[in-house]
Amino acid sequence: MIKALSVLRAGAPLEPVRINRREPGPAEITVDVAYAGICHSDLHMARNDWGYSTYPTVLGHEVTGFVSAVGTKVTAHTIGDRVAVGMLLGSCGTCPSCRAGQEQYCTGGGGAPADAGGFSERMVVGQDFALSLPSTLDMAAAAPLMCAGITMFSALREWDAGPGVRVAIVGLGGLGHLGVKLAVAMGAQVSVLSRSQERERDARRFGATGFHTVPDAPAGAFDLIISTVSAVTDLAPMFTLLDVNGTLVMAGAPTTPLSVPVGPLITGRRRLAGTSIGSLREAREMLDFCATHGIAAEAEIINADQMGTAFARLDAADVRYRLVLDAASL
Amino acid sequence: MIKALSVLRAGAPLEPVRINRREPGPAEITVDVAYAGICHSDLHMARNDWGYSTYPTVLGHEVTGFVSAVGTKVTAHTIGDRVAVGMLLGSCGTCPSCRAGQEQYCTGGGGAPADAGGFSERMVVGQDFALSLPSTLDMAAAAPLMCAGITMFSALREWDAGPGVRVAIVGLGGLGHLGVKLAVAMGAQVSVLSRSQERERDARRFGATGFHTVPDAPAGAFDLIISTVSAVTDLAPMFTLLDVNGTLVMAGAPTTPLSVPVGPLITGRRRLAGTSIGSLREAREMLDFCATHGIAAEAEIINADQMGTAFARLDAADVRYRLVLDAASL
Repeated sequence: MIKALSVLRAGAPLEPVRINRREPGPAEITVDVAYAGICHSDLHMARNDWGYSTYPTVLGHEVTGFVSAVGTKVTAHTIGDRVAVGMLLGSCGTCPSCRAGQEQYCTGGGGAPADAGGFSERMVVGQDFALSLPSTLDMAAAAPLMCAGITMFSALREWDAGPGVRVAIVGLGGLGHLGVKLAVAMGAQVSVLSRSQERERDARRFGATGFHTVPDAPAGAFDLIISTVSAVTDLAPMFTLLDVNGTLVMAGAPTTPLSVPVGPLITGRRRLAGTSIGSLREAREMLDFCATHGIAAEAEIINADQMGTAFARLDAADVRYRLVLDAASL
Repeated sequence: MIKALSVLRAGAPLEPVRINRREPGPAEITVDVAYAGICHSDLHMARNDWGYSTYPTVLGHEVTGFVSAVGTKVTAHTIGDRVAVGMLLGSCGTCPSCRAGQEQYCTGGGGAPADAGGFSERMVVGQDFALSLPSTLDMAAAAPLMCAGITMFSALREWDAGPGVRVAIVGLGGLGHLGVKLAVAMGAQVSVLSRSQERERDARRFGATGFHTVPDAPAGAFDLIISTVSAVTDLAPMFTLLDVNGTLVMAGAPTTPLSVPVGPLITGRRRLAGTSIGSLREAREMLDFCATHGIAAEAEIINADQMGTAFARLDAADVRYRLVLDAASL
């Protein structure tokens, strides 16, 4: 039995429990959790906002830790290795997405289930889904890279962020602050769009050269806008800010349909897209990229007994910029 | 004075009028109109559906004709040349879109105005905006290529229609039937999505290998869906049909905002875009492509005295597949 925090029913608080983890299968490893970031989607899952949660559930999908056991056929890791584990815990390996190296969009059913959930002392995952953590990355600050970081990295890469590309990040939270750091390191010209002026100083500290509230942002000024905000559903103001051929990417997931004006789409060949996490290859690239450029989350490390207020703080956007559970406190 | 058909106020019928055309400027040519296709957007402009029509107006932007006069500095055309003229009648030449060879998305104000409108005996346009019409293309059937054809060609090229790409064309009208022919000639695997079964035979005659009503179309079956229908605003059923990484392109322009479900965007990195006409370069390529592949519109040639019912037939989708005015009947 190990210690964990569990949500027992929709909307219930995190509760200390003891659970079993199975022994690792031949191609699996056991990871002793060191840190687990707290993502907004943990909150959505705890409340069943998306309608597909099951309970009881141990949440937490931004994990760093140490390998403590390996299956008989494991070649990728040895005991004691520092590893990082994200949302991606399985993939079928045979669908077109998997064959294209985009396991995050697997349509084949996801493969063998892991025995996971980072708000716990220990998890069992397939060896391919635990990534080696570069030695220069801090384990607490690196944990949020595995969801917030890879989500932004994958989108920035897919839509060619780099020199000469004007990128706006909407919302300076967990995803947003990493998006700014990553886009700046990729060489893009980065602005932050926020509801209020209060985060301008931080935005500039992370490397943004522009900061605007949405109503005051310049029209047609961006090639790529990535929205990390799940409250935005009327996209007309965003499309005003996109240049010809520009793309608005939704990384935050509103629960109601988006309202999209037709005019800016047609008259400027503008685009709307969504994005999820990244592939395993992208995640490895992202960790190396972060190690090279000294990028990690601004992490506030909290103990298990502070997890009760963590969701409330997330809901109130009272986090700068990622809460990270110290699993030793369980 | 020349003869033309004019709309005198919003919603008024086309009326025979006599108007002046100026002499061509140094870089302009006079085109004696042979044929002018009747586009759904002519109907929208006649009714001021988009709110920016001015009256009186001579509509018609799918034109073929003969050069009858040239300005002193014209080098591209000589008197007697067969030419084609579309929507694109000016561009600033200096904005980023123009510099990128995408004059159709010019943000610089559009350049010098033409003295145009194809429902007339004669127009005066800049030499760059009249394209040489390949000798093998029929003048009546080629006219609709200059809006319906180039719109579909540009979208198919921008989103890489070709071998191995599963394309669905929504709506088998003026744009749709040319979209099918063009996509088939590009080597794509083409299906038609229609409201009813009655156009299946024609769709297959144009080269489509699939035909479905939207509710019966297979889920996740398409990489690219191009909607030519302006009545569609709830896009949820369309997104069901897109595969991972697929794109829905709106070539038809609804007047109300689109409702877009977030889930399919994020979970499959799906995309929504709009598209307008093509660039001058693309239009030249399109005419050559149509000449090479024997592609033109299915044109029903009508006389000026039938133009009164043309808009009503368009509104009722009672056209197979493009009405084309014979300007000799003016």
